[in-house]
Amino acid sequence: MTRSKLKIIPLGGLSEIGKNMMAIQYENDIMIIDAGLMFPGEEMLGIDLVIPDISYLMENKEKIRGIVITHGHEDHIGALPYLLPQLEVPVYSTKLPHGLISVKLKERKALDGAKLNAVSYGQQLSLGRFRVELFPVCHSIPDAAGLIIHTPLGIIVHSGDFKLDYTPVYGKPTDLSRLAQLGAQGVLLLLSDSTYSELPGYTPSERIVGETLDQVMAQAPGRVIVTTFSSLVSRIQQVIDAAARHNRRVFVVGRSMTDIVKMTLELGYLKAPDGILANIDQLKKMPRDKVVLVTTGSQGEPTSALVRIANKDHRHVHIVKGDTVVLSATAVPGNEALINRTVDALFRQGAQVLYDKVAKVHVHGHGSQEELKLLLNLVRPKFFIPVHGEYRHLSLHAQLAESVGIPQSNIFVLEDGDVLELGPDGGKVTGKVSSGNVYVDGLSVGDIGSVVLRNRRMLSRDGIVVVIIAINRQTGKLVGRPDIVSRGFVDTRESKDMMEESRDLVAKSFDHSGARPADWDFINTKVRDILNRFYYDQTKRRPMILPVVVKV
Amino acid sequence: MTRSKLKIIPLGGLSEIGKNMMAIQYENDIMIIDAGLMFPGEEMLGIDLVIPDISYLMENKEKIRGIVITHGHEDHIGALPYLLPQLEVPVYSTKLPHGLISVKLKERKALDGAKLNAVSYGQQLSLGRFRVELFPVCHSIPDAAGLIIHTPLGIIVHSGDFKLDYTPVYGKPTDLSRLAQLGAQGVLLLLSDSTYSELPGYTPSERIVGETLDQVMAQAPGRVIVTTFSSLVSRIQQVIDAAARHNRRVFVVGRSMTDIVKMTLELGYLKAPDGILANIDQLKKMPRDKVVLVTTGSQGEPTSALVRIANKDHRHVHIVKGDTVVLSATAVPGNEALINRTVDALFRQGAQVLYDKVAKVHVHGHGSQEELKLLLNLVRPKFFIPVHGEYRHLSLHAQLAESVGIPQSNIFVLEDGDVLELGPDGGKVTGKVSSGNVYVDGLSVGDIGSVVLRNRRMLSRDGIVVVIIAINRQTGKLVGRPDIVSRGFVDTRESKDMMEESRDLVAKSFDHSGARPADWDFINTKVRDILNRFYYDQTKRRPMILPVVVKV
Repeated sequence: MTRSKLKIIPLGGLSEIGKNMMAIQYENDIMIIDAGLMFPGEEMLGIDLVIPDISYLMENKEKIRGIVITHGHEDHIGALPYLLPQLEVPVYSTKLPHGLISVKLKERKALDGAKLNAVSYGQQLSLGRFRVELFPVCHSIPDAAGLIIHTPLGIIVHSGDFKLDYTPVYGKPTDLSRLAQLGAQGVLLLLSDSTYSELPGYTPSERIVGETLDQVMAQAPGRVIVTTFSSLVSRIQQVIDAAARHNRRVFVVGRSMTDIVKMTLELGYLKAPDGILANIDQLKKMPRDKVVLVTTGSQGEPTSALVRIANKDHRHVHIVKGDTVVLSATAVPGNEALINRTVDALFRQGAQVLYDKVAKVHVHGHGSQEELKLLLNLVRPKFFIPVHGEYRHLSLHAQLAESVGIPQSNIFVLEDGDVLELGPDGGKVTGKVSSGNVYVDGLSVGDIGSVVLRNRRMLSRDGIVVVIIAINRQTGKLVGRPDIVSRGFVDTRESKDMMEESRDLVAKSFDHSGARPADWDFINTKVRDILNRFYYDQTKRRPMILPVVVKV
Repeated sequence: MTRSKLKIIPLGGLSEIGKNMMAIQYENDIMIIDAGLMFPGEEMLGIDLVIPDISYLMENKEKIRGIVITHGHEDHIGALPYLLPQLEVPVYSTKLPHGLISVKLKERKALDGAKLNAVSYGQQLSLGRFRVELFPVCHSIPDAAGLIIHTPLGIIVHSGDFKLDYTPVYGKPTDLSRLAQLGAQGVLLLLSDSTYSELPGYTPSERIVGETLDQVMAQAPGRVIVTTFSSLVSRIQQVIDAAARHNRRVFVVGRSMTDIVKMTLELGYLKAPDGILANIDQLKKMPRDKVVLVTTGSQGEPTSALVRIANKDHRHVHIVKGDTVVLSATAVPGNEALINRTVDALFRQGAQVLYDKVAKVHVHGHGSQEELKLLLNLVRPKFFIPVHGEYRHLSLHAQLAESVGIPQSNIFVLEDGDVLELGPDGGKVTGKVSSGNVYVDGLSVGDIGSVVLRNRRMLSRDGIVVVIIAINRQTGKLVGRPDIVSRGFVDTRESKDMMEESRDLVAKSFDHSGARPADWDFINTKVRDILNRFYYDQTKRRPMILPVVVKV
């Protein structure tokens, strides 16, 4: 009798960073880990969000037993509002992600009918033939979990997003002894976070940032304005703690920061001594060296409080000399220019600005190389799959695994859509399911395909030229002179002569044609060719040419 | 008698990094330092290059005595082909930049009539009332210079782009003793490079990279492929030296790298032992562990040799397992995504890839904080202006100057276009000249203004909808049904119904209008409003709406 194999199917997060999602299948049972979104790259013009392709899951909908969420960051939960109404399966997570998911589903009017379950660390979940247990890991948001998955073929450990912080500000350190126990029992497969596999050494403890904040609050001659991710609850806690030590009051500025502070205070994730939080109305009355402001805007988001402050566009807060601004975050790739512009604007108004290049104001939430090796050594898995990362991160993580003794043949560097069939003796990629980017643009999910994006790209480079050609319905002859309108191509006043010349060129091309209605395709192509060549000669630019034929 | 003042007028490089250019004026004499270009930011859609605005110089053309170039990088010489034909003044530089400028002018057919002068370090140039001397500085290209400018009011020292490398691979270290002498004599003003003023400590010596290359060539089981900037001649020298030590032959791949190697060998900047350089035809015959390839592509440029190799699209070179690729460069901001994609593609084909995050394969060419302070301490200027940087770089450099004892009132943080009038007792900004970005797009210089760019940006986000409305010339009534064509807006097949509905909406808006020819502007606005609202309701997108009225 041949035993069935496990199928490991990454649907997101292994070809690009973000939109994490993975399916694990055994016979007729599928469990899903995470359902995240990705923010669009520069080349995805006009796109709002990117979510995973779930065609495979929709084809096997009746087999899905549930989605287990590792933690509450957008790249792990953000696709739920779009996918859950289609998948209609229960979702399991710890308390904070449970709260965040509820808020997100409500915003998108997808909460009705959703089966959301808050579970505790250590609690056993039965998802078909899988028995799943969440264990605590350290990450840059409270209530983060890794997964222990008991399968008929053995134990799978999934690290979630993790680092090893022995002195975390909030919550428990990563549960190493549980992992060591499992390692001793025997683990079939480890899936581990590769986001920072490029970085040598250990990721520093959050404590480092606490010390910097302490110094800043002690020494700053005026107000201290700290900006960070609203999900970074431990950082907000550190700000409150440091403010308390230096007799400063804390003003929370901006809607999203206010919302998250309120929620995490209520749920008990954030602790504020009585009277330390103050209302923005009291700001003017306070001496400047008794004030701390907490706000979002660390990514230079144009509508954030910090950017409005930097641009002298905020109702309550204006920079004055003596203010110290702390950007307690790193740039998400692609945001560098926006952040730099914000820092420049703050300096220009006389603020002292502390950011990651010049001060220890942030540590990230993922393990570096030594931590990844430690996890591998504790769990001692038979097989290893690096997850969460682009190809180079996965490759480097694979090299780390090899360096601690896992044979190369037991390490699988997968990409999204790969189907790895894994048995007790080995595994191999046996197929490929549909995967890749599904674009959310405005209200629509998935209608933006490569044609629309290619057109946007072309339009963005050299603009568009619309050529209006009126043709006699009966004779097929040109009526009047073709009209030409352009946008984003040239300065229309300066290039008037060239544009007039191009109208003549189009008109001339009809002289000998005597085109009949059937030839309109031919006309299109011909007009495009003529104008493409002419404009390129004149300008070395290639606008999109759009001939419009009006039959009169 | 009131004495005249010096005017210091930055025209580029002090609001954004790149396109460095500065004018120094005393009465009727103007000298210019550098004339560089900048590569466009993401938001400058379709733009090829950015150069400085020289309106002020054109208005004062008869006063300009010459342009002095500090070194041969694009951000210091790249605007010359565009500006020199207008300015028609002599250019002075050391030998290597002289060669590079000649090549650039020739390419743009601007060499005829150009007055290019190669000068030596220490040689005195008379430019009106200015006496200028170039002194050696260390930077990531040979023949880099700082400037000592004797003016009627005192000595100005300009650092150029510099770092302090006591063991440079090529050329002389920065001439500290000359600077100390000047400091003892008394320096009126120091202008110094702020590019890396964010970085604490000292910039490491180029030697570090030599050691890494040595190790790689010794240990790599197969070919070593090194990619770097073609201008980084010292790096190419290090590759040749390391190859020689490990009995590997060097193959230069790609046109631009081949050109620069040829030129620098001829001029004597590059030294290659006999028989070490090999022709690409011999590549196949060589054992893999005896091969080094040198190529461009460190920025992920789509047409570079490395990117073609990574994409399996190169005529001669295909990656095989065992190959080691070294990216000996850092990302120019904005290129990160292209570089990451290239690294991923190389890993995917089985190469080992070494890049700045994972190995010591690059050091940059600018001084860090301690070097900047050392220069300030040696030169001991009365006044100080940080140059080359965005506002935060300049601010931080100003803080460094203050920390070594220069009074705040003697430090001027300027931006492009500021006119600083400086006398022996102080200075102040007394005016502003036209400055900013002049865009080069295809053949044209400066015709792309904010309207064209705004249109490109709008087109890039949600595409365009062209509405063709045929109107009877006499009656002003609609003829037939309006036609609608879109590009980059929606998937036209999936959104057929919506597009049809929008045609009806436009048609209906004419029912009661009875528009006369004079109302065409009104029609335009009305059609735009109706469609904007309709499409936004339906899709939450805002395409550009372009109504085209055809009179029949």
